[in-house]
Amino acid sequence: MALIVQKYGGSSVATPELMRGVAARIVKNRDQGHDLVVVVSAPGDTTDDLISLARQITDEPDEREMDVLLATGEQQSIALLAIAIKALGHDAISFTGPQVGIITDDVHGRARIVKIGDEKIRKAIRLGKIVIVAGFQGQTEEEDITTLGRGGSDLTAVALASSLGAEVCEFYKDVDGVYTANPRLVRDARKLESISYDEMLEMSSLGAQVLNSRSVEFAKNNRVKVHVRSTFHDHPGTLITEEGNAMEKLLISGVTYNKDEAKLTVLGIKDKPGIAAVIFKALAAHFLNVDMIIQDTSEEGVTNLSFTVAKGDLKKAQQALESVARELGAVGVQVDEKIAKVSAVGVGMRSYSGVAAQMFEALAARGINIQMISTSEIKISCVVAESDTEEAVRAIHEKFKLGAAPVHEQA
Amino acid sequence: MALIVQKYGGSSVATPELMRGVAARIVKNRDQGHDLVVVVSAPGDTTDDLISLARQITDEPDEREMDVLLATGEQQSIALLAIAIKALGHDAISFTGPQVGIITDDVHGRARIVKIGDEKIRKAIRLGKIVIVAGFQGQTEEEDITTLGRGGSDLTAVALASSLGAEVCEFYKDVDGVYTANPRLVRDARKLESISYDEMLEMSSLGAQVLNSRSVEFAKNNRVKVHVRSTFHDHPGTLITEEGNAMEKLLISGVTYNKDEAKLTVLGIKDKPGIAAVIFKALAAHFLNVDMIIQDTSEEGVTNLSFTVAKGDLKKAQQALESVARELGAVGVQVDEKIAKVSAVGVGMRSYSGVAAQMFEALAARGINIQMISTSEIKISCVVAESDTEEAVRAIHEKFKLGAAPVHEQA
Repeated sequence: MALIVQKYGGSSVATPELMRGVAARIVKNRDQGHDLVVVVSAPGDTTDDLISLARQITDEPDEREMDVLLATGEQQSIALLAIAIKALGHDAISFTGPQVGIITDDVHGRARIVKIGDEKIRKAIRLGKIVIVAGFQGQTEEEDITTLGRGGSDLTAVALASSLGAEVCEFYKDVDGVYTANPRLVRDARKLESISYDEMLEMSSLGAQVLNSRSVEFAKNNRVKVHVRSTFHDHPGTLITEEGNAMEKLLISGVTYNKDEAKLTVLGIKDKPGIAAVIFKALAAHFLNVDMIIQDTSEEGVTNLSFTVAKGDLKKAQQALESVARELGAVGVQVDEKIAKVSAVGVGMRSYSGVAAQMFEALAARGINIQMISTSEIKISCVVAESDTEEAVRAIHEKFKLGAAPVHEQA
Repeated sequence: MALIVQKYGGSSVATPELMRGVAARIVKNRDQGHDLVVVVSAPGDTTDDLISLARQITDEPDEREMDVLLATGEQQSIALLAIAIKALGHDAISFTGPQVGIITDDVHGRARIVKIGDEKIRKAIRLGKIVIVAGFQGQTEEEDITTLGRGGSDLTAVALASSLGAEVCEFYKDVDGVYTANPRLVRDARKLESISYDEMLEMSSLGAQVLNSRSVEFAKNNRVKVHVRSTFHDHPGTLITEEGNAMEKLLISGVTYNKDEAKLTVLGIKDKPGIAAVIFKALAAHFLNVDMIIQDTSEEGVTNLSFTVAKGDLKKAQQALESVARELGAVGVQVDEKIAKVSAVGVGMRSYSGVAAQMFEALAARGINIQMISTSEIKISCVVAESDTEEAVRAIHEKFKLGAAPVHEQA
């Protein structure tokens, strides 16, 4: 009799038929004797449809009212899912974020959870009910509806699991778990039995779509055991825990890539102290997050400074740079959107040197040019030409022998 | 600087474009210096679409969860309308029923308003905001979402107008106001400048679609001045007040019809005391509302008993009658769905006899057979064959000279 928090994404509840399937799975889990709290996202494209409605009224819809609008998507899901479970003869009850006492700050569109009141949920569980909670939403102390932003439903699930002291927080996905690389790119990519919070955090930040990094961070900080598994079968997926893949003793857990960044280069600036500070202060003033940074070796006192930003921020960054570049007497600003960041992640590299060298070797052997490099304790990232992405991921995956078996044995 | 409650129906906000139109109208009213509280229904077919979604999951969806589901329709409307008003540069704020403190009993699907907390609205008005409130919904003392059932948004508007002491409660419709008869049936039907609560109540109960009778009753009991007017222009519509059409000194205010009833006749029962009681007790046990009742003149101690019920209740009524009819030794039960109830309504008939006679005369002159009759202080209703409906309405309208001008002058 464990208390389990389950989370189902929007694609799992996109149609009444899928909704019935999810209900059947929940009922099966219930029959195994578990207490269940189920977090659910808005069905299918509902959120996008609502955003499109608002944009037909105005280009810049009010943020408070957008939250009122978007919160209806998850509210529809919880009602329909509770209806489906009750139709199967089990007792269920739905709660919106505000009803369940998810209190957030008042930053509409990307609110942070401040506290969770769990009395209603505990009471419903005591009464033997399956509890269905709307993801992605909460309310301020003043009872204004808020939404948690990208990955908000995942965050709701992890936060509830923490607050309720659940044994595990299960994420039901259209994938089996976390893989050593994207299986669509790498034929012999292998599902990991387990992975550490830190590794998952790097992988999420680096573009793996499995779990939002905010949720992984919350799970890490609050020691919530996470299980990423398939909606379609009962085989175990990937456990995300403190220990991670210690059992498997892997040097590298996975290889990820991200095509959502663009590179900016400020050309021909004087190589003297304080120049970089001026540039990045100008970007910070526009709330722009910079990822990787490199400064070329100076030639005759002149150098180039390159960095990456999210593609969505590129226009803003260019505008912010223009006047600064003029001020600094730079030759110009160059933009490259056709890049990708390829990363190897693993706690194993903490205690083993030479990982970076092996990675660069793997790329060199395929003739792939490395444009930028950045490293942390447990990851190495290289920026390469976008057209080299797949080849680079495969090369690194192979170099570290991450595959389940040699490619030719599977073919 | 009056406080006005306005209510816009679902067809007025069915598309983003219509929503912008309603916002423009509200802003114009605001610019005239009024404080505005706007009640809005779910957009277009949203409610029907949500019901259909639930029915794709199960035939009998849980009632508590249906309310959670349906409440999202109005929540979308308030958000979009507030977005549209803010886009026009005016300050607006939306509230759901629960947020605004509309507390109801726990009869899901047709809850009754128990009390309204108006602090949030008053505060927002003091801050100069246009307040947008979701119609049709509230919550129980235990914070469960409820809906008010058919005509619920109208009721929200009237209840808020009462609670806030608004100068008037305006209903924006796709018609100009209340007419002496349905203008689609009667070419010279005339818009009434005013009508009394009692007359409007009879007309609503008798099938006029303009306002739900629960709302009219609430307005009457709480002396809320109601103004039914057009969404499409600024001309005054029809005022519903205590005095009604006293100024116009009309004998009859309007002629209505209703095709939603069916007639049941229990044939060949013994004409002795207590028989009718047995029959209507059996119907009451199934919560069936009976409208008109007539008992034929007894012949040789045997008689027939006829009554009407809502067409939707016909099956239930037949089932309830079967065993009772057998018990009473009746010859059988006859059903007629092809009937219509045609009614003349007017406070004037209180002080003037002979109205019924004129009405029967009008019908007789056109050869229309009257099957049943019922009267109250201010209305006379006749059941006729459904195929005679239009002819009957026109005959009565003409008899009481309700038209703006003779038909041939308009043609």
